[in-house]
Amino acid sequence: MQQQISIITLGIQDLIGSKRFYVDGFGWKPVFENEEIVFYQMNGFMFGTWYGHKLEGDMQRQNQGPGPFSLAHNVSSKDAVETAMERLLSHGGSLLRPADAPIYGGFRGYVADPDGHAWEIAWNPAWSIDALGHVRFGL
Amino acid sequence: MQQQISIITLGIQDLIGSKRFYVDGFGWKPVFENEEIVFYQMNGFMFGTWYGHKLEGDMQRQNQGPGPFSLAHNVSSKDAVETAMERLLSHGGSLLRPADAPIYGGFRGYVADPDGHAWEIAWNPAWSIDALGHVRFGL
Repeated sequence: MQQQISIITLGIQDLIGSKRFYVDGFGWKPVFENEEIVFYQMNGFMFGTWYGHKLEGDMQRQNQGPGPFSLAHNVSSKDAVETAMERLLSHGGSLLRPADAPIYGGFRGYVADPDGHAWEIAWNPAWSIDALGHVRFGL
Repeated sequence: MQQQISIITLGIQDLIGSKRFYVDGFGWKPVFENEEIVFYQMNGFMFGTWYGHKLEGDMQRQNQGPGPFSLAHNVSSKDAVETAMERLLSHGGSLLRPADAPIYGGFRGYVADPDGHAWEIAWNPAWSIDALGHVRFGL
């Protein structure tokens, strides 16, 4: 698998307070936002802040820790999602969510690493990944 | 502040099991490793897996959640560390560790975002940051 991490998503409680910290504090500009999530185009990867209960719902694991946390690894085809998940599951990972198609398109599942950190393995045809592993937001 | 995240550090319990997952599972190559931490050069940023109790000691916050988690934002000078921390503290952040010099060089402190996610604000002269925000490992 390409040596890249595609998204950092932080589960949050308060979108307004979170935006104040990142937009006003850090001075970062969102590349996309709606009523529940904000995305920032970072140095070669995406950073997202999303309501924690939404993120928990997506990964199908709840009430573990101060807030849910996930990392995403995007792959280049739908078939590659389950191949990657199976490889991770055979190397110490545990299944959180079998791969399926979210309503916004693509295909994804969740695997936890040995310490319980959630990894979303995703095929998202709207987001390009170049040869350097730079992920680009798309709709 | 530059729109970049410099390091993703995951607190781990078992270095061998973690390496198995990332090196053998994902197929990623470490750029540096010792008896307590492994660093991977990612797409424009660093990914580190470090013993959780060491990370907790470094950020001076313990026993919150299933494992400590931090994100790092590196700045270009020692003076910029406290300037950045103050700006974050005035925009919803809370202080975890006042800035000081770690034994391995540089200068750093920790601020939690509104949801308790730990941000290390660091000046590390051994790690370069180019105009695109791509952080490079150095010793």
